[in-house]
Amino acid sequence: MLEELKKKVCEANLALVRHGLVTLTWGNASAIDREKGLVVIKPSGVAYSSMTPEDMVAVDLNGNVVEGRYRPSSDTPTHLVLYRAFSSVGGIVHTHSTYATAWAQAARAIPNLGTTHADTFHTDVPLADEISDDRIRAAYEEATGDTIVETFRRLKIDPEETPAALAVHHGPFTWGRTAEKAVENAVVLEEVAKMAAITVALNPSAQMNSALVEKHYSRKHGPNAYYGQRG
Amino acid sequence: MLEELKKKVCEANLALVRHGLVTLTWGNASAIDREKGLVVIKPSGVAYSSMTPEDMVAVDLNGNVVEGRYRPSSDTPTHLVLYRAFSSVGGIVHTHSTYATAWAQAARAIPNLGTTHADTFHTDVPLADEISDDRIRAAYEEATGDTIVETFRRLKIDPEETPAALAVHHGPFTWGRTAEKAVENAVVLEEVAKMAAITVALNPSAQMNSALVEKHYSRKHGPNAYYGQRG
Amino acid sequence: MLEELKKKVCEANLALVRHGLVTLTWGNASAIDREKGLVVIKPSGVAYSSMTPEDMVAVDLNGNVVEGRYRPSSDTPTHLVLYRAFSSVGGIVHTHSTYATAWAQAARAIPNLGTTHADTFHTDVPLADEISDDRIRAAYEEATGDTIVETFRRLKIDPEETPAALAVHHGPFTWGRTAEKAVENAVVLEEVAKMAAITVALNPSAQMNSALVEKHYSRKHGPNAYYGQRG
Amino acid sequence: MLEELKKKVCEANLALVRHGLVTLTWGNASAIDREKGLVVIKPSGVAYSSMTPEDMVAVDLNGNVVEGRYRPSSDTPTHLVLYRAFSSVGGIVHTHSTYATAWAQAARAIPNLGTTHADTFHTDVPLADEISDDRIRAAYEEATGDTIVETFRRLKIDPEETPAALAVHHGPFTWGRTAEKAVENAVVLEEVAKMAAITVALNPSAQMNSALVEKHYSRKHGPNAYYGQRG
Repeated sequence: MLEELKKKVCEANLALVRHGLVTLTWGNASAIDREKGLVVIKPSGVAYSSMTPEDMVAVDLNGNVVEGRYRPSSDTPTHLVLYRAFSSVGGIVHTHSTYATAWAQAARAIPNLGTTHADTFHTDVPLADEISDDRIRAAYEEATGDTIVETFRRLKIDPEETPAALAVHHGPFTWGRTAEKAVENAVVLEEVAKMAAITVALNPSAQMNSALVEKHYSRKHGPNAYYGQRG
Repeated sequence: MLEELKKKVCEANLALVRHGLVTLTWGNASAIDREKGLVVIKPSGVAYSSMTPEDMVAVDLNGNVVEGRYRPSSDTPTHLVLYRAFSSVGGIVHTHSTYATAWAQAARAIPNLGTTHADTFHTDVPLADEISDDRIRAAYEEATGDTIVETFRRLKIDPEETPAALAVHHGPFTWGRTAEKAVENAVVLEEVAKMAAITVALNPSAQMNSALVEKHYSRKHGPNAYYGQRG
Repeated sequence: MLEELKKKVCEANLALVRHGLVTLTWGNASAIDREKGLVVIKPSGVAYSSMTPEDMVAVDLNGNVVEGRYRPSSDTPTHLVLYRAFSSVGGIVHTHSTYATAWAQAARAIPNLGTTHADTFHTDVPLADEISDDRIRAAYEEATGDTIVETFRRLKIDPEETPAALAVHHGPFTWGRTAEKAVENAVVLEEVAKMAAITVALNPSAQMNSALVEKHYSRKHGPNAYYGQRG
Repeated sequence: MLEELKKKVCEANLALVRHGLVTLTWGNASAIDREKGLVVIKPSGVAYSSMTPEDMVAVDLNGNVVEGRYRPSSDTPTHLVLYRAFSSVGGIVHTHSTYATAWAQAARAIPNLGTTHADTFHTDVPLADEISDDRIRAAYEEATGDTIVETFRRLKIDPEETPAALAVHHGPFTWGRTAEKAVENAVVLEEVAKMAAITVALNPSAQMNSALVEKHYSRKHGPNAYYGQRG
């Protein structure tokens, strides 16, 4: 039933390894079938080297397992919150990629310092709010998703225009219309996180003018985009 | 007609991947046939993994497509400005390579701090001037080329002697007599950009004496060059 | 007799190369057979490229060679001290991996700055005390182990909860229930050491709240763990 | 006549590529036949990918080519000065490896901050004195060697105990009893240069006590060495 989606989610998880974004069993990718209301996600703590589409786990939007012999990723509740809140999202990726995680550990948003960033992320990549100790102890993974959603609302950032967030002290989540696009955004995020770390070391007060931000973002996105091939 | 040049331009684009200078579909290489007045360039947003010489696009110096089934790179107008202004240039490369881009984002020229730099670039690699908001909104890619040309003229730098520039907040452009040489200069630029970032962290006031600059540049370039093999 | 353990120890040593943790002949992994009271360890200064299980050396807990044609690693006395003091340890790894070694050279413990660290190490990765000049000259390798043990006792850190230490000016030791687990901890340690170095450059006063530390550590360890697959 | 030495020198040059120490055609390795008074060295500016033992060039200690169809490396005069001054040296390597070159560009000796350094280099890796403008213009490559020799004498450093130097604003030279050993020392130098750069960022006043320096150096070198396998 979900065979096609399981293949794509498995492939997205393996792409994380190929792009150098994960260590050991870290990281996870998922995708949603909006019609069926089912999410397919990587199993928890399983080795990438032997992973097959059949190992993927299908859950409903409340987290009940509907298919699969393994337990789903322990980060599943975070994915579900994001799918419920961001209705256009089709795939989600979570990694502990080195530089993006370092910005999260430093409790700093990744500033929009250049066109490489602006081509994919319209704003700074926001740092989600701290989670209260009570919520950490009660329903931590759900709270991780909640603070991302709350932070986007507070900052009035459109999750389609900036498809990434940093869970504070933790690491990045990225998303997109598909799992494949979420992986691509995770690759871009790690690269702009690295560039930004080097940039602020060279010039702590570096910043880009807003006309250039708008130009680059609109070259690739929206009604007047002219990057890539069109039908 | 342009088959040979398309092969070389395709090979130059693939060399960017091999040298680790590009992520996803970023970056582009081109070459010019000066007799015909035609430029061959990478198509916009096409995957490197499946790229063939037939995918390359040929345009005239005004940007009209004369051969090829794809749209040319969105950076084509920048390449054309540089070909028109720098008459000895035969090939151009644009990347978002990590360290060179970080210097561009930091809005700093890459200082000539050692012989590795001086062997290839006679001066600091200049930072092109900021582009006014009006020009960003009107003809941005052309303005990117114009500011590079204007900056070289203002600083009295010979583009043959320093075959590279940083578009501010954006990233590096390199050039050479051929596309292959432009790739080689992009490789050197990224390496000297990385060395320079480490150097200024170790010693913010590092600088090289001009006699050493002249010696190293002239070992490899000009009438008294003695590096490499001669006929 | 120890054939199985020799295979595992050889494999653990080769895994250090595969994970990019060693240069030339640096680093060593060992494992203990607690019943027999014998430790199997890498030979000293032998090339990884030609290493086989038969090259491993077996020593008793006093360091007497009981099997093997080579001399054991010069770090063997350090391993033996740790096996004697930390009774649940089954395998030990020592490397000079780049970032963990840099923290040791900087004489700083690796601070627990994010969930990547807390998932594996319950506390900061401690910096072992300086070794007195007299002990350096007399029984240096044994003293290296002794100061690790003494530091864990002084700081009241449980070696099962934080399976890693930095020998000051020297480099990391990690351990685990098996040699394979000790290798895994060495991989994690190098990654969190790199993340922490980038983090403190971005924010010198970065720190994580203790509720998040406890949550992440307990997700993977102890009676209420819920990461990975269970029987 | 020199076939065996040419094979070893070619292999040493190719090892520089394998160890990631060179970019494009940068770097060179040589070895000396002390009985014949002949030095075999890499040709200038030839691609590593097609290099064979027959491409190596043999010169006498005055720099006269005695065998080979290519011009020798432009750095040959530096190698010859070192062979004449340091009588126990059998092989020499020059690279522009990233971190060692950055220290040279920063005009700082690489400090002996940990046992990884002390295992191979007994002292800080010295920074050779600046070369006067007159000597740069007259016999630059020879002067590069002369300042290394003069710096070792001024600082009373034994070139056998610290087989490496930084040519200021330029890059590292390493040596050893054979070309293979000189390559190994170049590998270690780049790694300790990287570790030291990270270390001083974490702790600008980091330093190691001299008892530990002596212990580690003597573990591997001199009459009481006990690292590795003995006859």
